[in-house]
Amino acid sequence: MEPGRLIDITDPGDVRIAEFISIRERDLTGRQGQFIAEGTVVLSMLAKAHAGAGPVKAEKLLLLKNRVAGLSDLLAQFSEDVPVYVADAAVLDAVVGFHLHRGVLALGSRTAPPDLAALIGALPDDALVLVGCGISNHDNIGSLFRNAAGFTADAVLLDETCCDPLYRKALRVSVGSVLAVPYARQGAAQDVLGSLAEAGFEIWALSPAGTVEIDTITPGRRVALVMGTEGEGLPPVILDHFLSARIAQAPGLDSLNVGTASGIALYNIARAMGRLG
Amino acid sequence: MEPGRLIDITDPGDVRIAEFISIRERDLTGRQGQFIAEGTVVLSMLAKAHAGAGPVKAEKLLLLKNRVAGLSDLLAQFSEDVPVYVADAAVLDAVVGFHLHRGVLALGSRTAPPDLAALIGALPDDALVLVGCGISNHDNIGSLFRNAAGFTADAVLLDETCCDPLYRKALRVSVGSVLAVPYARQGAAQDVLGSLAEAGFEIWALSPAGTVEIDTITPGRRVALVMGTEGEGLPPVILDHFLSARIAQAPGLDSLNVGTASGIALYNIARAMGRLG
Repeated sequence: MEPGRLIDITDPGDVRIAEFISIRERDLTGRQGQFIAEGTVVLSMLAKAHAGAGPVKAEKLLLLKNRVAGLSDLLAQFSEDVPVYVADAAVLDAVVGFHLHRGVLALGSRTAPPDLAALIGALPDDALVLVGCGISNHDNIGSLFRNAAGFTADAVLLDETCCDPLYRKALRVSVGSVLAVPYARQGAAQDVLGSLAEAGFEIWALSPAGTVEIDTITPGRRVALVMGTEGEGLPPVILDHFLSARIAQAPGLDSLNVGTASGIALYNIARAMGRLG
Repeated sequence: MEPGRLIDITDPGDVRIAEFISIRERDLTGRQGQFIAEGTVVLSMLAKAHAGAGPVKAEKLLLLKNRVAGLSDLLAQFSEDVPVYVADAAVLDAVVGFHLHRGVLALGSRTAPPDLAALIGALPDDALVLVGCGISNHDNIGSLFRNAAGFTADAVLLDETCCDPLYRKALRVSVGSVLAVPYARQGAAQDVLGSLAEAGFEIWALSPAGTVEIDTITPGRRVALVMGTEGEGLPPVILDHFLSARIAQAPGLDSLNVGTASGIALYNIARAMGRLG
C-alpha cells in the first residue's frame, strides 16, 4: 500500500481515534451500530464484509506501527476512504487502556439487524437456523456464530435477552463470523419460535431432558436448533411446545458448554440434511 | 456447620492465606502440586475428590463471609482438618488482587500425575482416551477435560508441550473435571501415541485434512482421539503415521475451536462404542 495512506497518531487523546479509548470498558456500553474488531482474523472478515453490499462497513483502522508491513495484503482490501491510523506501542496501549499485544484494531459499523420477519422470509426452501435463548455470555454467543458458520447455518436468531454479538469479545470468539452470518436479535423466545413454526420449520429444542437423541433425527428441509443457557436451560414452556432433542452424556454431570453443544447438534443435523458433503 | 470452624481473616497479609495473594499473577507460575479452585462448582468437585482415596486433597478454603450460610451443605463435605477462612469483600479483594464477586476459593494439592505407562497400563479393556498435543490455551485444556468427563473418556493424555490443567482458569473451564478424570502430562506426542499403539489402541488423529469422516467410523474396543492446536493442527508426522479423521464443515473457514471439535469427536465415537446409552 502507498505509505501516504498511513496517518500517524502520537497523542492518545487524538479525537480521530476517540472510539478506541478504553475499549474494555466501553465494550459494555453497546454503542449502537458500531463495533470494535480485534486481530487479523476478524479484520480479514471485516475486509470481506466491507467489500460486499451487505450491512457491515469498516470506518477506520488503528494499527501498531510495526504490524503494518506484514498486513499490506489485508490493508489493500479496504477501500481508500477507510483511514488507517498507526501508533507505536506506548501510544496504542495508552489509548486502549491495556497492553494490546496483537496491535490490530478496527472500528466497524453495521445498519440495524434486519427485522425478524424479513430475515425468516428471506431464508431458502432448504434451511438450517440456530436459535439462541437467553445467552448472555459473550464467549458463548461468539461460539454459536463460529459453529453456525462452520456448519452452514443460514442464520442465527437471538431472542431479545441474548447479548449483542457485536461486542468485541463475542466478535473475536466468533472469529469474525458475526460479520458474515445473517442474524436478528429481536422478540421473546416463544415469538421467534412461533414465527419459525409458521414458516414451516421443524423446531428442535436442545436439552438434557430432550426426548430424541440428536444423532437419530431424520430432519426435514427446514430445521431450527434451539439453544438455552447452561445453567437454567430452556424453559419448560418451550420444551413442552416443540420437539426436544438431547445429547447423551455421562450421568450426573454438569451439562455441556453451550458452544460445544451447539457444535455437536449442528454437525449432526447438517450431516443428516446432506449439507456437509 | 459449627461456627467454631470458621476462622476470621481481617489482614490481607495474614500468612495463613498467603497462597491466595494475587492469584491472577501467581496462576502463571504453576506452583508444583498446588492449585487454586474457584467457584462453587469446582469446590464441589474438590469436596468429592478430597473425600476419596485419590491424589487430590483440599488444603484450605477462603470464602466471602456472606457466602458461608448458603454453602453449609458443601462445607460439611470437607473433613474437619480443612480450615475454612472467611473474610469480608474488602479484605478478600485486597488478597486476591481483583474483585472476586463469586467469593469462593480453595487451595488444593495433588500428588504428581501418574507415570504415563502406569496410567495406560491401568486402563480397562474397553477404553476411550483423549490425547492433547501442544494445547497451550487454558480455556481449551479446560474444555478438553469437561468434554472428556461428559463423554465418558477414561483418561486424558497430554504431551509435555500442553499447559498444566491445574491452572486456575483451566480448572474453572473444566467445571472441576480436571480433579476427576485421570490424566498424565508427559513425553513427546509421538511417544505418547506410540505407547498407546503398543497397548492396542486404535489412534485417530483429528484434522481438517483427515481421511475418514468422524461419524462413519466403526471403532474398536480401545480408541484414542488426538487433538492438536487450532492454528497449526497436528504435525504431518502424526497424521502420516496414524489413522486420521475429519469433521466436515463449510469450505474456506477457520477450523473449529479445539474444545468444540473434541466434543463432536468424543460424542460420535462414544456413541459408536455404545458408551452413551
